[in-house]
Amino acid sequence: MYGAGDVRLVDAPDPVIEQPTDALIRVVRTCVCGSDLWTFADMEPSEQGQAMGHEAVGIVEDAGKDVATVKTGDLVIMPMFTADGSCSFCCEGLTSACRHVGFFGRMGFPGAQAEAIRVPHADANLVRVDAAPDDAIVPSLLTLSDVMATGHHAAIGAEVKRGGKVAVVGDGAVGLCGVIAARRLGAEQIIVLGHHDDRTNLAREFGATDVVSVDGEEAVEQVRLLTGGTGAHSVLECVGTEAATATAVEIARPGGAVSRVGVPHYAGIPAFPTWVKNIRVAGGPTPVRPYIDTLLRDVLDGTIQPGRVFDRTIELAKVADAYQAMARREALKVLLNP
Amino acid sequence: MYGAGDVRLVDAPDPVIEQPTDALIRVVRTCVCGSDLWTFADMEPSEQGQAMGHEAVGIVEDAGKDVATVKTGDLVIMPMFTADGSCSFCCEGLTSACRHVGFFGRMGFPGAQAEAIRVPHADANLVRVDAAPDDAIVPSLLTLSDVMATGHHAAIGAEVKRGGKVAVVGDGAVGLCGVIAARRLGAEQIIVLGHHDDRTNLAREFGATDVVSVDGEEAVEQVRLLTGGTGAHSVLECVGTEAATATAVEIARPGGAVSRVGVPHYAGIPAFPTWVKNIRVAGGPTPVRPYIDTLLRDVLDGTIQPGRVFDRTIELAKVADAYQAMARREALKVLLNP
Repeated sequence: MYGAGDVRLVDAPDPVIEQPTDALIRVVRTCVCGSDLWTFADMEPSEQGQAMGHEAVGIVEDAGKDVATVKTGDLVIMPMFTADGSCSFCCEGLTSACRHVGFFGRMGFPGAQAEAIRVPHADANLVRVDAAPDDAIVPSLLTLSDVMATGHHAAIGAEVKRGGKVAVVGDGAVGLCGVIAARRLGAEQIIVLGHHDDRTNLAREFGATDVVSVDGEEAVEQVRLLTGGTGAHSVLECVGTEAATATAVEIARPGGAVSRVGVPHYAGIPAFPTWVKNIRVAGGPTPVRPYIDTLLRDVLDGTIQPGRVFDRTIELAKVADAYQAMARREALKVLLNP
Repeated sequence: MYGAGDVRLVDAPDPVIEQPTDALIRVVRTCVCGSDLWTFADMEPSEQGQAMGHEAVGIVEDAGKDVATVKTGDLVIMPMFTADGSCSFCCEGLTSACRHVGFFGRMGFPGAQAEAIRVPHADANLVRVDAAPDDAIVPSLLTLSDVMATGHHAAIGAEVKRGGKVAVVGDGAVGLCGVIAARRLGAEQIIVLGHHDDRTNLAREFGATDVVSVDGEEAVEQVRLLTGGTGAHSVLECVGTEAATATAVEIARPGGAVSRVGVPHYAGIPAFPTWVKNIRVAGGPTPVRPYIDTLLRDVLDGTIQPGRVFDRTIELAKVADAYQAMARREALKVLLNP
């Protein structure tokens, strides 16, 4: 990415092992994230550009001499960022706060929208998968790099409980994965707020019980009616805008919880409405690696099928088309084939 | 209160039993709350005025025929608001969200800065105390009406854990009770942020391990150093201003929790700083009654002595002086003697 709207396919040198804890992976599938669209919309022009992408399933091509858990030929899932696996935050499971965190596709770090990528601290990050790299399973594995893990983080932050009433604000790929996560955690009612019929229909297939397709006060009123007048115990805010956050807070039940997983593109969370209702607000960058460990079995046995959020596949050579299709909301989430 | 700065002692009709679930109590001690000072600072002039005060320890003078748990002559603690004790929120313990909540001293509801007061739903609200109404114990009992319960709510919202590092923003009566609560819950380190030597000295007696008396970025830096570079697991924001909230968020450890118990006098909780650190934000009006049940034993056996936050006693007849003394920060918290 060389600036807003300026996506270019360029030849880059092959990555090489730099540290004995590195691994190189050949990318089997990568994709475009909703968060990449913010960069696509507002990046300042840059001469050196930024390698993009942070989601990948790949095959290990080479590994440094200290790497013990993956080897050449292994199918692996790569989390959206690399953590050292040994600092106090990693030990607590909050890998996204790692003291040596490196976000792929940001601030000069390598991007996954590529043929190959170098992964530092391979043992702490890559997860070996005992499966064939076929089209039936790879898309769902790929969602564990970010979007399904992020939907799970939203559900955890919103304290989704068995039997609870849940609302998901947003019908993008994260929102849909939030529906999957809420269902998986046993929510009794899952209301999705979104405008796109194809997406809210998929949400229903994922377990949503109700769809609210209006906005603002009307949406708040509908959620109130659907929840017996009190609001949702758990609200997953999966958009990242001021309006979505205000709605999320308004539809939360007193004593409930709101989580925000989209990068916030607004200044403040409404202070008084959260206070007066004793609402807990949580969320942030997803600690991906521990969540892969939690979610992988359900993906492998087909209990959850988050790969269904991909509704288009494009060759990596035409990556600019993928950004366009998602920015224009013609595609929900695009799989890239290097 | 008839407007900002306009406190008057007036003769009012004696309250009477209106519902069979009411009780009348003769006020033994009441007090002025930090939240009353907001009203004292900015109330619009009003002809009918507002009876003030929401904290009381009293003796039951009369009880309606359906009241079963207290009787004439009992010493009781009155929570700062009345709840019905039977709605879904009360059953979950969030009495402050009761469907029939009534806040004493607000919006036309009776005030406790009086000789007597009518308490609706007496069984659900009043807590009988098996003690003599003497000066050794009554002040501490009185703090269970609000300020000590609120300090406890702050500690619960900030998820204070045994061995945790805690920061308390503000050295007012709520902050000091937050220190007591954090200590009681087993915090290993308790840093209090405040400017008043007499108050921070009392905080140390209550269990604070460190005092930070500077502001803004300097305070943030000191807390960082005191916590080994990472910030506090739990931050209790006990002021209610924008600056205090910004500081609270900045001194929280990634993955930590911030609670806010002062009525927020600002628009928004910083959205990005809370998000990027995965901080949970909680807090709101204190569900007092369940907390009295939790805290009363520790007050009665002297384990905690929150009544020490009262540093002055004034006759109810001179209630205006009490507001002045607290507004000028000459008194920390004033006990009123009807």
